[in-house]
Amino acid sequence: MKEVTVRAPATVSNVVCGFDCLGFAIDGPFDEVTARRSDRSGVSITHEDGFGLPTDPEKNVAGVAVAALLAEAQADFGIEIIIEKAIKPGSGIGSSGASSCGAVVAANWLLEEQFPPEKLIEFAMEGERLASGSRHADNVAPCILGGFVLVRSIDPVDVVRLDFPPLFATVIHPQIEVRTAEARAVLPELVPLASAVRNWSNLGAFIAGLEHGDYDLIGRSLVDEIVEPARRGLIPHFEEAKAAGISAGAIGGGISGSGPSMFMLSKTRERAEIVRAAIGEAYETTGIAFNTYVSEIVGHGASLR
Amino acid sequence: MKEVTVRAPATVSNVVCGFDCLGFAIDGPFDEVTARRSDRSGVSITHEDGFGLPTDPEKNVAGVAVAALLAEAQADFGIEIIIEKAIKPGSGIGSSGASSCGAVVAANWLLEEQFPPEKLIEFAMEGERLASGSRHADNVAPCILGGFVLVRSIDPVDVVRLDFPPLFATVIHPQIEVRTAEARAVLPELVPLASAVRNWSNLGAFIAGLEHGDYDLIGRSLVDEIVEPARRGLIPHFEEAKAAGISAGAIGGGISGSGPSMFMLSKTRERAEIVRAAIGEAYETTGIAFNTYVSEIVGHGASLR
Repeated sequence: MKEVTVRAPATVSNVVCGFDCLGFAIDGPFDEVTARRSDRSGVSITHEDGFGLPTDPEKNVAGVAVAALLAEAQADFGIEIIIEKAIKPGSGIGSSGASSCGAVVAANWLLEEQFPPEKLIEFAMEGERLASGSRHADNVAPCILGGFVLVRSIDPVDVVRLDFPPLFATVIHPQIEVRTAEARAVLPELVPLASAVRNWSNLGAFIAGLEHGDYDLIGRSLVDEIVEPARRGLIPHFEEAKAAGISAGAIGGGISGSGPSMFMLSKTRERAEIVRAAIGEAYETTGIAFNTYVSEIVGHGASLR
Repeated sequence: MKEVTVRAPATVSNVVCGFDCLGFAIDGPFDEVTARRSDRSGVSITHEDGFGLPTDPEKNVAGVAVAALLAEAQADFGIEIIIEKAIKPGSGIGSSGASSCGAVVAANWLLEEQFPPEKLIEFAMEGERLASGSRHADNVAPCILGGFVLVRSIDPVDVVRLDFPPLFATVIHPQIEVRTAEARAVLPELVPLASAVRNWSNLGAFIAGLEHGDYDLIGRSLVDEIVEPARRGLIPHFEEAKAAGISAGAIGGGISGSGPSMFMLSKTRERAEIVRAAIGEAYETTGIAFNTYVSEIVGHGASLR
């Protein structure tokens, strides 16, 4: 194969009680990433979007991810990467992860799928390191694998695809910037053991709820007394938006990634649309521009167009 | 019905990464608790064992548990409780919980099973409050429900029975006392967020491992960098015993409850016996007397003899 195009979905990470370890993939928005075999060694980057992201492969998340893959493959050829981004950078729904994952999945096709998903996650984490200063997999793992993915450890990569019932995400993306550095700075370094226990009890129950298809348990478990209280002040009108979503019948929700996007989960697409309308109505009064998305949580990750 | 006898199993709580929220029931040792309808109101306690536990119902864990049940039922009769304990008090395998649970399950039979399991857990927690000064459900919930039980919250009682593959527990009980107060005092009040994240990642993975029947994942997830390091110093030769169990092929294990018992999990009864022999051999060199048990993790809790 000389050229492939991959669709890489947006992802929601830091799923309430699943801070730093749990994420899921939605079916839109998505980035389209094309990889083309080239006789020139190394990686080149072309953007077909208007976000003005770097084209120097060493400064581009897809560039460093594919460079890591090519190095490990000891490939005797280069790869041109063409990125058509739809996921706005800094949105909190895995924008950098989608480009990295799309690029490594596409490049892996050119290499006849030489690498298993765990290796692709490892390569894509090089993009996350460039974007945020630290390797983390809670966006790239669900972007590669699809569905809900728990990251037990990143070194070595140890990830688990969870079973889950039909679930629909409503995402609202206020058009403001939350700097990752600031979102990290507000986190406490130490937390009360009692709070940590309540959090892991909730995460355990959330995972059991997904596996059993128990929507009520999923909803009761979407509680976070550690990260959300620290970060919600960075997202204007977070409380009102969340309350509007719950009132409209969402199971639960919270901050997506490190914000500014928020997400709510619903049992049906119809309910997720009602939740979208309710949050939109609440948010319109704030004067802050925003986008909304409604999407099924899908079982496949980045894949051929 | 005028009289029933219930077998209430020993339980392992604080299952490594599941501190304060995860426990499981084994099929021995167990307490036998008989409840007999009496025309005299209130609760009376008789012991048919040699542990010298209080017979004043207000000072006996089974007594306060059944008193709570009778009060809620507004019963117009009393109950005599006869306890034949096999689970040594202070062993760390849910001794107080077994007596409380056996008593409330037996009393509930006399009341024609008026109360659902959640209520029985609530009543039995009154016994735990008497025994340890705080209400907790990670022994009594698996003792009532059987199998692996996750406690999401105790107020209100919100517990989840988990699916799990065949698993066998090897328990070693050194004949020393670990005071619950001391075991609590050594715990940190604050923990690093990074450690807490690793713990909830492991607990999430452990639960996914149980649900998927993935023994390797179960084993990789049995890691605890918060409670075990704080408490292992209270249990002589904990490290050697654990290492011997792992070397003998156990999947993983750790402290049972707040000690001094330890447990290891194995895939088969044969392996659990090999683990028992290996830990026994290692522990014999310490000069400390000990008991060992091998038991399947069973799907039923306290039930009629």
